[in-house]
Amino acid sequence: MKISLLGATGSIGTQTLDVAQNLGLDVVCLTAHSNIDLLEEQIRKFSPSLAVVYDENAALELKKRVGGMIEVAAGMEGLKQAASLSAADVVVNALVGNVGLLPTVAALEAGKTLALANKEVLVCAGEVVMPLAKKNGVEIMPIDSEHSAIFQCLAGTNRPQKIYLTASGGPFRGKTKADMAHVTPDEALAHPNWSMGAKISIDSATMMNKGLEVIEARWLFDIPAGQIDVLVHPQSVIHSMVEFEDGQILAQLGAPDMRLVIQYALTHPRRAANNFNRLDFAKHNNLTFTAPDMHNFPCLALAYAALEKGGLYPTVLNASNEAAVAAFLNKEISFLDIPAIIDKTMDAYNENNLMVNIDNILAAEAWAKDFVTKNRR
Amino acid sequence: MKISLLGATGSIGTQTLDVAQNLGLDVVCLTAHSNIDLLEEQIRKFSPSLAVVYDENAALELKKRVGGMIEVAAGMEGLKQAASLSAADVVVNALVGNVGLLPTVAALEAGKTLALANKEVLVCAGEVVMPLAKKNGVEIMPIDSEHSAIFQCLAGTNRPQKIYLTASGGPFRGKTKADMAHVTPDEALAHPNWSMGAKISIDSATMMNKGLEVIEARWLFDIPAGQIDVLVHPQSVIHSMVEFEDGQILAQLGAPDMRLVIQYALTHPRRAANNFNRLDFAKHNNLTFTAPDMHNFPCLALAYAALEKGGLYPTVLNASNEAAVAAFLNKEISFLDIPAIIDKTMDAYNENNLMVNIDNILAAEAWAKDFVTKNRR
Repeated sequence: MKISLLGATGSIGTQTLDVAQNLGLDVVCLTAHSNIDLLEEQIRKFSPSLAVVYDENAALELKKRVGGMIEVAAGMEGLKQAASLSAADVVVNALVGNVGLLPTVAALEAGKTLALANKEVLVCAGEVVMPLAKKNGVEIMPIDSEHSAIFQCLAGTNRPQKIYLTASGGPFRGKTKADMAHVTPDEALAHPNWSMGAKISIDSATMMNKGLEVIEARWLFDIPAGQIDVLVHPQSVIHSMVEFEDGQILAQLGAPDMRLVIQYALTHPRRAANNFNRLDFAKHNNLTFTAPDMHNFPCLALAYAALEKGGLYPTVLNASNEAAVAAFLNKEISFLDIPAIIDKTMDAYNENNLMVNIDNILAAEAWAKDFVTKNRR
Repeated sequence: MKISLLGATGSIGTQTLDVAQNLGLDVVCLTAHSNIDLLEEQIRKFSPSLAVVYDENAALELKKRVGGMIEVAAGMEGLKQAASLSAADVVVNALVGNVGLLPTVAALEAGKTLALANKEVLVCAGEVVMPLAKKNGVEIMPIDSEHSAIFQCLAGTNRPQKIYLTASGGPFRGKTKADMAHVTPDEALAHPNWSMGAKISIDSATMMNKGLEVIEARWLFDIPAGQIDVLVHPQSVIHSMVEFEDGQILAQLGAPDMRLVIQYALTHPRRAANNFNRLDFAKHNNLTFTAPDMHNFPCLALAYAALEKGGLYPTVLNASNEAAVAAFLNKEISFLDIPAIIDKTMDAYNENNLMVNIDNILAAEAWAKDFVTKNRR
């Protein structure tokens, strides 16, 4: 990719050069208003074929210094030349103010992809520039953190580098094992944010639900466990996040209403209008994150352990959890017995050289449930 | 779309029926474990062609009640039949526990699109199910808020219904006009989160920057001003959000580093690795939102007003702001004079019947700058 950079000596300009260097991109043109000392440095480093200085006197001075090496132009004519340079395929407009308007038009008319930091152009001339871009089949890439955020949220697919699974922390968030020694099924069923079935409510109270989701994510998104982080986020407003290889994160937020989720599963990749509650940031005005407490909520650690062991261990984890939760709901065991029983079951399992296939999964499940029944106390 | 719903009487199942009704989808099959009273109600409402009850005795009882209307099957064989029903194109697996495993396999082998709420299937058999889905060219849609979030963040494009532009609030967030009467350029240049040029730093202090971004967004994303909300979010972690017509929101988060934004503009739709700082949620553990204070920061309201008036008013706004900021940086006017001057300039402008074209934009700009020069006091 060959870049013509308009406004090379400003804040966006210098950072653009950092990025271009990092990506190994060719810089074929640099422009500055009048800071020819810095521009000269940049020219010597990036070897463009054209340099433009808006200030005519400064342009003359620069010509004396580097005129033997490259072409030097000046003024608005120079900027327009820079914006339409045949050697460039992308124009980065990092100019400040409306001085960028005509060069933007020149870039679009020349069919250049436009990376636009010069927001004033759109503020003033959006009604002109957008149809022009369309007419010339040119894409405009925003260089503005907010607009880039939106653009990214709207844009295509990329592989995740890391997944942040958010967790409400359940009804016992912040409690210690001692606090939870005598909780009843009714207390454990009272989830703060989501209205759910009994099994998943208990799983949420033990945080096994999150552990299961970690494993689920590993398969759905083909990402190793080490790249899946759980974040306790009691407000349940951010539903999860994806970090890409460039370090940027996309998050999805919404009201805690499973109908939205179901609907999307049925309408994907489209969306459909509905009258469900909307998220209200006046109410949800404070979002917090903490690391999960794996000491007091060992189920999450057990799930990570099962995933690490692999093979049929996740089946053993899940089956023993299912059996333990059922026993807890029947008041046969205590809340803290749930992780203890799962731990014991996983320790006792010793057939992990088996293939992971349906038959062996069903057998491991049956074994684990039977083990829990026999070792409940 | 024709749906076979496995687990119709549970929490996800009943909500799936709400959604199906809302979307006007055909429900061709319903299954339940044993709650035949609710299942019978659902059958009478949705008229599927097949009902399955896992419990054999309950199935016999249901057959007595509705056997004249539809086919009734039982047990695991019934669930597998439901999952592979030729009349269905989507199978919603809202079963709880590993009972869903074989029906899932049946659905995938029959080439059904699978909407999966039954997370245990993946926890235990991801290694089996995912290749099977791939082999049969079947998509798996997660019905789990976290995984749906990730899936959506990873997936295609949709038109926004609303845009939330986040704003740091700048260095004077929370201050009143009285507090800001005597601020100096140096104080106004000290932005809390972003390292930027002088003009944009002052714009950030007055919140005109956000106003300009509102207008920018209107053009970039072809969305009316009334659908662009500003949220003050002092931590600058969430870079902006998009709400879709279904009420779900995507947000983009990251370290406040413009290089990320620039890089993305250059690599889109791909991303590229880098060694820039990553966002650390242990540090950024509290995100807050408040409505913008348009009384003490009138520049934002002026920008919305310019956008509403349309035509060349955004140019007048921008040009008068540019001139006023320059005068403030030169210590010719006070900080609070900035919005006052813009307001006065917009009030004085009276040529808004002109076409929005380049010539008229440049003329309006020149007029506004001249007006500010002559009316600075």
